[in-house]
Amino acid sequence: MGHQLDEIFNPRSIAVAGASPDPKNRGNEFLAALVEQGFKGPIYAVHPRAQDVLGNKGYASVLDIPGPVDYVISSIPASASLQLLDECGRKGVRAIHFFTARFGETGHQDLADLEQELKRRAEAGNVRILGPNCMGLYYPGLGVSFHPWPHESGKVGALSQSGGNLMELVYGVTHRGARFSKAVSYGNALDINETDLMEYFADDTSTEVIGAYLEGVRDGRGFVKAVSKAASRKPVVLLKGGRTDAGTRAVASHTASLAGSRQVWQALARQTGAILVSSMEELTDMMVAFNYCPPGTGMRVGVSGGGGGRAVESADACEEAGLIVEPIPPAMRAEFHRRYSEVWGDWISNPVDNSIMGGTDVNLQDILELMAKDPHYDMLIVNVGEGRFMHKPDKESNSFFDSLDKTLEIAKGAGKPVALVMGDTVSEFAWQVEFVMESRKRINAVGMATFPTVRRAAQALFRLAGYYRQASEAGR
Amino acid sequence: MGHQLDEIFNPRSIAVAGASPDPKNRGNEFLAALVEQGFKGPIYAVHPRAQDVLGNKGYASVLDIPGPVDYVISSIPASASLQLLDECGRKGVRAIHFFTARFGETGHQDLADLEQELKRRAEAGNVRILGPNCMGLYYPGLGVSFHPWPHESGKVGALSQSGGNLMELVYGVTHRGARFSKAVSYGNALDINETDLMEYFADDTSTEVIGAYLEGVRDGRGFVKAVSKAASRKPVVLLKGGRTDAGTRAVASHTASLAGSRQVWQALARQTGAILVSSMEELTDMMVAFNYCPPGTGMRVGVSGGGGGRAVESADACEEAGLIVEPIPPAMRAEFHRRYSEVWGDWISNPVDNSIMGGTDVNLQDILELMAKDPHYDMLIVNVGEGRFMHKPDKESNSFFDSLDKTLEIAKGAGKPVALVMGDTVSEFAWQVEFVMESRKRINAVGMATFPTVRRAAQALFRLAGYYRQASEAGR
Repeated sequence: MGHQLDEIFNPRSIAVAGASPDPKNRGNEFLAALVEQGFKGPIYAVHPRAQDVLGNKGYASVLDIPGPVDYVISSIPASASLQLLDECGRKGVRAIHFFTARFGETGHQDLADLEQELKRRAEAGNVRILGPNCMGLYYPGLGVSFHPWPHESGKVGALSQSGGNLMELVYGVTHRGARFSKAVSYGNALDINETDLMEYFADDTSTEVIGAYLEGVRDGRGFVKAVSKAASRKPVVLLKGGRTDAGTRAVASHTASLAGSRQVWQALARQTGAILVSSMEELTDMMVAFNYCPPGTGMRVGVSGGGGGRAVESADACEEAGLIVEPIPPAMRAEFHRRYSEVWGDWISNPVDNSIMGGTDVNLQDILELMAKDPHYDMLIVNVGEGRFMHKPDKESNSFFDSLDKTLEIAKGAGKPVALVMGDTVSEFAWQVEFVMESRKRINAVGMATFPTVRRAAQALFRLAGYYRQASEAGR
Repeated sequence: MGHQLDEIFNPRSIAVAGASPDPKNRGNEFLAALVEQGFKGPIYAVHPRAQDVLGNKGYASVLDIPGPVDYVISSIPASASLQLLDECGRKGVRAIHFFTARFGETGHQDLADLEQELKRRAEAGNVRILGPNCMGLYYPGLGVSFHPWPHESGKVGALSQSGGNLMELVYGVTHRGARFSKAVSYGNALDINETDLMEYFADDTSTEVIGAYLEGVRDGRGFVKAVSKAASRKPVVLLKGGRTDAGTRAVASHTASLAGSRQVWQALARQTGAILVSSMEELTDMMVAFNYCPPGTGMRVGVSGGGGGRAVESADACEEAGLIVEPIPPAMRAEFHRRYSEVWGDWISNPVDNSIMGGTDVNLQDILELMAKDPHYDMLIVNVGEGRFMHKPDKESNSFFDSLDKTLEIAKGAGKPVALVMGDTVSEFAWQVEFVMESRKRINAVGMATFPTVRRAAQALFRLAGYYRQASEAGR
């Protein structure tokens, strides 16, 4: 199965059925995304009027295309899907991604029947189906995408029944500097489903962490097996949509999936070693955490940055997330006394309150470095965002960025999980937006895990350590 | 007490002790903020070198100032604080805001003793103290601030032991378009404390919702009484810093406050009708919710916007927060059948999945309007942010903003609580940043409650309805 999907995900040529030069045409957007992403093989537009699109040759049917076609993206109406499928079968197409929707998910029997007929004919014609009702494949390494996203490859793999959620995930993860191996939206899972994709990502050596948004599972036993296999090799993070009654109803009208109970999914997570999360934000956070952080099983956290209120907030958030806010160990306290006056040596604690140091000889980066090196601290949380808005950049920006760069250097060299807390909401002040964007650029250039709030940072680090702890106990 | 603070918060003239033209001098920033904010009365700089600052006359001592001085902002070292206090007493100054810190919070007895001596002399000299170790007062109506913030007044009142947390709150709330009556950072609460301020805001008719970040309470009985009085008149939202062991330790080194247990605070909230939250984000969210939403006790929510995955996520988030995701009522279903084809009439459900409507005659704004008018829905959540990043603006921006404006019009006229979900994290793509800023501008111009995630929106609406329900049961 892994091999078969590998062939499907590595087409030599792609045709977009339904692409026309009309800018309102969604098929045209699929074609434009392939061009933008730099797909190297031939790209064809298929449309009754046989029009060229963006310099790519147009044909009235896939059967008219002279060379072989491995992969077809369908953006045509559902009513024309059977004919397309039959023609693809005759053409020798390996797989069709049906962006085309309005099948079983409408709740109407005739459309559900049409979907089943699509499946029967696909099997007969030896054509695999991705979808229907999905956004398809983002595979930067091959130049395949449905949206203008980063061209670089990374180690995050993702599968999602929802195209919109996959887009949120890709935007959220890439914004925070991480990159994808492949991300697949698979919609109604008529043929290629969550089990196939989980097995594929389990075997895919370019993928080092797997994130999944799921609305239902067709083959429970097979899926558990696939997740177990995947989770024994790399972190697997699952977001199950449809945990509540209302969510279950919404799932039915979205992808017509059968939702399982919350208990079933909790049991699955325990049994397989996968991490179960409850929101897109948490799913995104875990991709970021695993992308950047080295493995570590300890829960003792050192926290720095921010004023006194943020220090208190950080302490509460860490303990409430399950981490241990380790007091300053005696040797470090002694070092403080050697370096600083008695007041500061006694006063500094964990979390380190940065605001108390102004105008003193206490060097915050030095304290962070001591924490980074001290084996009493298994992980670090560094609040880097709070100070940005305190002072106007004409006065403080250089010292802020100098300090940020030094912090990044220490964090990068710590050899333990480090979470930077940096809210980066836009502001109405242009200088603040520039500040945020410059900070983000520097952090992403170095490659560090960032979280918008200390609470989310603490929860992500707790789950990260929990995963490695469980893996270690399981002897992996 | 209310009257006394009113006098203190309405000074006719202000002196900044420690202000000098040196741009690295923090006192200078306090003075610059007063000038920027447009304080109408005389502003004086007090500094041993008696230098003018930003066109404001400089004096070596408050005693040298010819006219009366009502309010002094102190940015001088703690060691000089007693002398300043004595001179202020002789000058007839009503109150000193001590930004000056490093007293009891250092944990050193001599500095704690100095703080107590400050208190004794303040009482003897009839000078009230705000702080020490705090940022002081933001009062846009009078042109008093410690930071360049909006000049317009609003109905949100805030008190915070932490200056940094108050800044986070003001930034977060004003970014989302709401404005403050007054916001007060009060640090170590040596004299003016949380009870005084809560009583003050209870009586202050320009304040319609009160948010508080507290690390400790000096007079428990008095504070409960003040919160009860305030909460009987307007919503009161409390964030207690130092809920955990580590948080309690951090509180001690921040403001030397005695933290109470979580149980004590939960009991206080139950007894008084205040709302207890667990993070700065939640505190900010509740200020936004109460600022914009009309009162309402019902929990049945109608949700619109976003694709199918977001619809599922919204349903789960709402139910998990305690809201009721009300199915489409029969009369509305019948209306769908009248307006649309059978497929759409059956398919549309709550949450409304916007992605299924593309290319049909189904009008999403019409559906939202039906929900806004239907008494089966007590409140609405509208996902407006997700679609922005789906299409490039050259193609879709106008239709996106047209649709946003129409949504805002419906939401504004709904007469029930409406939460807009709009993440506005900066992106590396300039067009997306512009998109976000333009959306934010339009939303704030209309005045609607926004939340960065559907989960936070659902939690805020649940707490909002819970507050009005409790108030209604208490006969208020």
